[in-house]
Amino acid sequence: MKINSDRLWETHLAAATMTEAGSPYTRRSFTPQYREMRSWLTDAFAQTGLEVKTDAAGNLLGIYRGRTEKNVGVGSHTDTVPCGGRFDGISGVLSFLEAARCMKENGYVPQKNIVGIDFLAEEPSEFRLSCIGSRLATGNFNENMLQLKHRQTGELLSAAIQDWGGDISLLAPGHSLFDATKFDGFLELHIEQGPVLEKKQLDVGLVTGICSVTRYDFTVKGRADHAGNTPMNLRSDAVVAAAKLINGISEIARGTLSKGPYFTATVGKVDVFPNGSNVIAEQVDFTLDIRCETNQLVDETLQDIFALAADTAGKTATTISHVKISQSQPSISSERLLSVLEKNAIELNLQYTRMLSGAGHDAAYMSTVMPMAMIFIPCRKGRSHTASEYSAKHQIAKGANLLLQSLIELTSSD
Amino acid sequence: MKINSDRLWETHLAAATMTEAGSPYTRRSFTPQYREMRSWLTDAFAQTGLEVKTDAAGNLLGIYRGRTEKNVGVGSHTDTVPCGGRFDGISGVLSFLEAARCMKENGYVPQKNIVGIDFLAEEPSEFRLSCIGSRLATGNFNENMLQLKHRQTGELLSAAIQDWGGDISLLAPGHSLFDATKFDGFLELHIEQGPVLEKKQLDVGLVTGICSVTRYDFTVKGRADHAGNTPMNLRSDAVVAAAKLINGISEIARGTLSKGPYFTATVGKVDVFPNGSNVIAEQVDFTLDIRCETNQLVDETLQDIFALAADTAGKTATTISHVKISQSQPSISSERLLSVLEKNAIELNLQYTRMLSGAGHDAAYMSTVMPMAMIFIPCRKGRSHTASEYSAKHQIAKGANLLLQSLIELTSSD
Repeated sequence: MKINSDRLWETHLAAATMTEAGSPYTRRSFTPQYREMRSWLTDAFAQTGLEVKTDAAGNLLGIYRGRTEKNVGVGSHTDTVPCGGRFDGISGVLSFLEAARCMKENGYVPQKNIVGIDFLAEEPSEFRLSCIGSRLATGNFNENMLQLKHRQTGELLSAAIQDWGGDISLLAPGHSLFDATKFDGFLELHIEQGPVLEKKQLDVGLVTGICSVTRYDFTVKGRADHAGNTPMNLRSDAVVAAAKLINGISEIARGTLSKGPYFTATVGKVDVFPNGSNVIAEQVDFTLDIRCETNQLVDETLQDIFALAADTAGKTATTISHVKISQSQPSISSERLLSVLEKNAIELNLQYTRMLSGAGHDAAYMSTVMPMAMIFIPCRKGRSHTASEYSAKHQIAKGANLLLQSLIELTSSD
Repeated sequence: MKINSDRLWETHLAAATMTEAGSPYTRRSFTPQYREMRSWLTDAFAQTGLEVKTDAAGNLLGIYRGRTEKNVGVGSHTDTVPCGGRFDGISGVLSFLEAARCMKENGYVPQKNIVGIDFLAEEPSEFRLSCIGSRLATGNFNENMLQLKHRQTGELLSAAIQDWGGDISLLAPGHSLFDATKFDGFLELHIEQGPVLEKKQLDVGLVTGICSVTRYDFTVKGRADHAGNTPMNLRSDAVVAAAKLINGISEIARGTLSKGPYFTATVGKVDVFPNGSNVIAEQVDFTLDIRCETNQLVDETLQDIFALAADTAGKTATTISHVKISQSQPSISSERLLSVLEKNAIELNLQYTRMLSGAGHDAAYMSTVMPMAMIFIPCRKGRSHTASEYSAKHQIAKGANLLLQSLIELTSSD
C-alpha cells in the first residue's frame, strides 16, 4: 500500500491558500483562516469516512474506526507563526489524511482505531502560550493558563476553547483526555526545522527524543561613561563583558557537545542600554536558550557558565546576574515505536538516522501520557518559520509512506 | 587677584534654574530656556561692563576692552544635552564671567581685549550637528550644513542662525570670523567628563590636545535558524561572531594603549536582528568609536581590527563588513599657552597633570584658526551628560582662578 504523492502535494497547496491575505503563509490559531482550515479538514476527514469530533481541549479528531477499543494516535497541527511556512505542522496532519484515504481506498480495517489529531494552537498565539491543545488534553496545565487573555480582544483562553468546540468543564490539571490503558502510542510526522537531514542526504529522521528547553535571562551591569574621556582601564563596559561571556558560552557549549548528547546553547536576544555610539554601555540584557536531551548535562554546563560569568564580572568590573526563566523536561521516545519506524524505513529502502529534536512539539506533551515517536522529514536549508520553508513533494511522500506503513503495522493486530 | 567662589557658585545655581520644567537640567540650544540663558548672560556681561555683541555665527560675545587691538579669546557653551548637567559647558562661560567681574572690581585694564565667547549650540541639537557656533565662526563647515532642517519644525539652520542674531551673509567655508593676526590664542575651561582627575586627586588638567574621533559601522551577517534544531557546528551565528570580534577589539585596544598615546575604542551601540530568544541571530550591527591623539595610530589599529574581523568571519561562517562613518583630525594645544597655564598652576599651588581630551570641544575648532589650550576641572566619578554631573564649588573655583591668572598674564602686556 502506497500513498498518492500527487494528492498529498495538492492538499499542501490547497492548505496554503488558507492564509491571511498579503502575508503568506499566515494561519494563526483562533483566526478566520484557522476556522477555514478546520472547516476544510472536517469535510476532508468526513469525506474519507472518518468519524469527526472535537475533544474537550478543542483538538479536531478524525477517527479511523477499527475492530477493538484500542487506539493509536497520530497527528500534528495546522496553525502557523506569522508569515510561517507551508509545511511546519500541516505536513503531519495532511500525511495522516493521505494515509487514511489510502487505507480506505484499499479497504483496510485495522484492529485498533487510528485517532488522527489536529492539535489546537501549537504555535505561540495571541494568548502567549504554545501547544495549547496538547497541553490541555494531557493535563499539562494549571488553572492560570485558562485565564490568559487574548492580546488584542481580551477574550479569556477558557472562552476561546469553548468557542472552538472544546468543553473546559471536562479539563483538569493532571487529567488526560486519553485513556492511557487504551492507547498504544502516538506518532507525529513533522519537518525537521534544521539542516541535518539535508546535509546528510537522508530521507527521514527517527526522533529518539525531544530536548528540554532551558532559558535564563542574564543582566550585565556596567557604568555609562563618556566613550572619549574614560580611559580603557577605568571602565565598567557592559558590552565588553557581555561579549566575553557570550563568546565563552559558545566555547563551553562546544565542549559540552563533545561529550556526546545533543546540546545547543543560543544567545539570540541581546539588548544594550543606553545603546549610544559615544556612551560606554551601562547594561546588557541577553537570554540564553539551551536544548538538551538530559537536564543533568544542562545543569552541569550551567555551572561552568555561571563560573565564567562570575570570573568575567570580576575581570571587567561589572556585575553579572542570571535568573532561570523556564526549564522543561526532555521527552524520550518509545523504543518499541522507534523499532517499528526503523523496520519500516528499512523495508521502504529509506535512508534514515536516529536523531534528537531540539524544537518542541505536541508529541512532547503526548509523551507524558503514552508512548511516543516522531518522524522528521528534510526541509530545504533547515529553514522554518519563514515563507521560504520548503520540503519537496518526494520528501513528504517518503515520510508519509513510512507513517502509513508504520500505522498499518501498529494497528493490524491487537 | 582671586575670584569670588561664592558668587561663581551662585551663578551656577542661577543658570540651573533655566531648565525645561520636569527634566533637569535641560537647556537645549534653540529653545526658550536657551533664549532665557542668553538674555541673562547678555545682562550679566553688560552689568560687568563688557561690550556685548553677537557674531555672524550666532555666538554671544562679552568683550573686556583692552588698550590695543590685540585679543585673547576665552569661552565655552551654555546649552546642554537632554537631562544633562549643571557644569558641562556653562562652567567655562561662568568662570570667564566671574574672572571679568573680578578684574573689573580690581580696576584691571588689559593690554589686549579679552573676548569672552558663549558658542552657539555646542551639543547635538535638533539640527543634528554639534559645535555649530565654533564650526561656523572658524569656517569649518560646508554649505549643506546651513540647509540642515530642525527635526521638529523643519526650520533651516541658516534661518535659525539669523533668528539667534547671526548673519549668514558674512559666513563662508574656509573663512574665519576671527582675524588670526590679532588673536593671541584661545582658552577654554571645561569639566573633564572623565574620572582621571578625581582618581588622581588633582585640581586641574592641562589639556595638551583634543583627540580625533573615528567612527566605523560594522555589520555581521549570519543566518537566522532555529535555536533548537540547528546543531552548533552548522550555524552562522551573528551574535557569536560579533561577541568574538567585540571582545577582540577590546584586547587590541588595550595593546594599542600600551604603546603610549591616549587611545580609546568603544562599542556602545549594538543592534541584533531578529532579536528573538529562540532564533539564531541573522545580523548584528555595531558602531566602533575610536579616540586618539594621532590618526596614524588609529589607522594602524584599524588594520589589526579589520584583520581580526576577516579571521572571525572565516571561523564563524559569517560575513563581516565595515564602513567608515567619520574621522576628524586631532587638535594639538599650543605649547606656549600650556606653559602659561602650567606656570600659573604652580604659582596657585594647584595639583595638576597634562592630559588629552577624548571628548570634542569648541576649542578643537578654535585650534584651526589660533593657538588653543584647555583647563579641565574634576567632576564626580567622571559622570557627565546626566543630571548627577557634579563639580564642587572649590573645584570650580580653583580652575577659575587658574583661568583668571592666566588671562591676566596673557593680556597684561602686548
